[in-house]
Amino acid sequence: MRKSISLTFLLTLSLTSVAQQAIWGVPTIISPDIHEDNTVTFRLDAPKAGQVIVTGDFLPAEKITTPFGSFDAPGKAELKKNSDGLWEFTTDAPLSPELYSYTYIVDSLRMNDPNNVYMLRDVASVSNIFIIPGDRADLYRVNKVPHGTVSKVWYESPSLGMDRRMTVYTPAGYEKGDRRYPVLYLLHGMGGDENAWSELGRTAQILDNLIASGKAEPMIVVMPNGNVSQEAAPGETSSGLTPPTIRLPKTMDGTFETSFPEIVNFIDANYRTMADKSHRAIAGLSMGGFHSMNISREYPDMFDYVGLFSAAIKPGEDVKSPVYSDIDRKLKIQFDAKPSLYWIGIGDKDFLYDANREYRETLDAKGYPYTYYETPDGHIWKNWRIYLTEFAPQLFK
Amino acid sequence: MRKSISLTFLLTLSLTSVAQQAIWGVPTIISPDIHEDNTVTFRLDAPKAGQVIVTGDFLPAEKITTPFGSFDAPGKAELKKNSDGLWEFTTDAPLSPELYSYTYIVDSLRMNDPNNVYMLRDVASVSNIFIIPGDRADLYRVNKVPHGTVSKVWYESPSLGMDRRMTVYTPAGYEKGDRRYPVLYLLHGMGGDENAWSELGRTAQILDNLIASGKAEPMIVVMPNGNVSQEAAPGETSSGLTPPTIRLPKTMDGTFETSFPEIVNFIDANYRTMADKSHRAIAGLSMGGFHSMNISREYPDMFDYVGLFSAAIKPGEDVKSPVYSDIDRKLKIQFDAKPSLYWIGIGDKDFLYDANREYRETLDAKGYPYTYYETPDGHIWKNWRIYLTEFAPQLFK
Repeated sequence: MRKSISLTFLLTLSLTSVAQQAIWGVPTIISPDIHEDNTVTFRLDAPKAGQVIVTGDFLPAEKITTPFGSFDAPGKAELKKNSDGLWEFTTDAPLSPELYSYTYIVDSLRMNDPNNVYMLRDVASVSNIFIIPGDRADLYRVNKVPHGTVSKVWYESPSLGMDRRMTVYTPAGYEKGDRRYPVLYLLHGMGGDENAWSELGRTAQILDNLIASGKAEPMIVVMPNGNVSQEAAPGETSSGLTPPTIRLPKTMDGTFETSFPEIVNFIDANYRTMADKSHRAIAGLSMGGFHSMNISREYPDMFDYVGLFSAAIKPGEDVKSPVYSDIDRKLKIQFDAKPSLYWIGIGDKDFLYDANREYRETLDAKGYPYTYYETPDGHIWKNWRIYLTEFAPQLFK
Repeated sequence: MRKSISLTFLLTLSLTSVAQQAIWGVPTIISPDIHEDNTVTFRLDAPKAGQVIVTGDFLPAEKITTPFGSFDAPGKAELKKNSDGLWEFTTDAPLSPELYSYTYIVDSLRMNDPNNVYMLRDVASVSNIFIIPGDRADLYRVNKVPHGTVSKVWYESPSLGMDRRMTVYTPAGYEKGDRRYPVLYLLHGMGGDENAWSELGRTAQILDNLIASGKAEPMIVVMPNGNVSQEAAPGETSSGLTPPTIRLPKTMDGTFETSFPEIVNFIDANYRTMADKSHRAIAGLSMGGFHSMNISREYPDMFDYVGLFSAAIKPGEDVKSPVYSDIDRKLKIQFDAKPSLYWIGIGDKDFLYDANREYRETLDAKGYPYTYYETPDGHIWKNWRIYLTEFAPQLFK
């Protein structure tokens, strides 16, 4: 008996020193501690710290002012030392169902919660996450439903002169049988990459759950990398483990749009797709909404469903791509063909709200029909997850 | 011009507050800073801290003593404040090519490096990583070679009564054509999961590079989850974002071994495999080596190549699975069939070294041939990556 215990114990020594410490008697701290009533307690063992702050999108937003205007930033709350000597903060009220993110600030040093291994990278920063279940947030969870496959796939891009990576979701059951599926192309925002929708966007969970409940058609979801100078997400390229940056070359200059048919051709050649316009959708957030708007207009025979999620609308004034010229004529061709869905979603505090309102006025003036969906809040992942849950059920029906 | 700049700027507001800060003028700190001579500088901006330590496997190991014996723990070094007020430490000497991991300890609080987004979870702890290029470590990097696909795939396990997730690597070119491939089943250690080999083990990078250079045959690599009570890695299951634990139910009790044919059947049914013994290999680290030893012995017609990487050898004395009985007879059947490769690798400081030596003596006494590969160091990922780079080129030739 002694022997079997020590064997199990000894096997744990493959762990790094952190885990070893945890095994060797350092008390295990539960953080975040989600209570039955959906209040949440955050804890940190930092005996020598003078101040511990938690900052995250579960707290009321704080207004910050910049030369470009005022914006909402994640709120802050101070942790206090409890009777065990742990720093602790409990939310005043239950939190609504949602996927939330947070970090700590310990004596002005920002850090992740060492007791929560669940983190997501958004461009160059990493935050801890937690989910308050219920309502729409149950779509963001892994549930006991059939699961699709998520693949990191490389394709050859002759026009960009490199092999590039994309994320492909195939629905549960794809591997079996010979059924063909419609395809949603789902594009990330500036500073994002082919991991953004599958990680921050919870695409696989959302699609698994919507498909299992019969609310969405089984579909393939293709999440390419929209940064034409990048082979793949930071850390996944031949550049090595270099820090992510947001200012990438050739961003929003028309190159991604004109290279897009390569991606569609690759998918149609390598997956069992229904390879026609009525079984293709394209949607994206922010820069990806801009790309979706432009690609669907540039290639009017390619997509019957279009989703603009908090989309950027106007290219930079110094950008001279043919993709961004002759727009009225191209838009007329696109809408004369009567797309099955042209969907625009935006938050009422989004800095792109006015640009989207102007774009909708343009569409209104021409009598081009679209579906409009407005939410509270600004240019944040919470909204983009919501838009995906609203958009996907309307496809391919 | 002004407008295009501000558009780019405004799009960055989709970022979390951390990244926003970085854009709004907080100085960017390079850490780790890998110099041309392969010395490395670590930096941290923690103006109020009293002490900052870096701990990692790039530093000389420190001996720690426990009731179960003495073990090597990652070394430690103190950062000092430099003239800019940043905490800083530079290694005394160039580091050898390797994938290293580290964390900081700030006033006794363990934290990740906020300036390095590259982190890996090992069971319940998360460490930052960096790679010193050159030699074998170039196999761990993404290079400009054709890349295979890495998929997270769910399969139905009737014997375990749940859908379960595995990681599947298919080599570059798999999607094209109808070629069939041999399969390596690669198993993780205790506390690991189906992400361990693809993340900590750099399996896709190693296989991409070995295959591209002609050193390994193109093969499918299947990385299942060896914890029979788990659907998938922590955070990827219907249990939600609960903390990882190492003490899982029904670990090393024979259940995984007897359920293994389900995995082979699923792979043969859903991938273009060469579905016979001479095109199947099984290998694993620690608990996964134990599983590989047992599965290959229990199903002697299934695998022609077997790899034990720092393998656990003996089951717990209180475990009564038929898998662990009648071993001499089963081993004779396995070796009478003359496996193409029976490979044993271990570090000279591994706590399982003696158990492996005893096992080798058993094989020697019976005249059962095997290949033995001994390395410095103990029960660590550095060794398991090395073993994969040594083992994979010997398969299917």
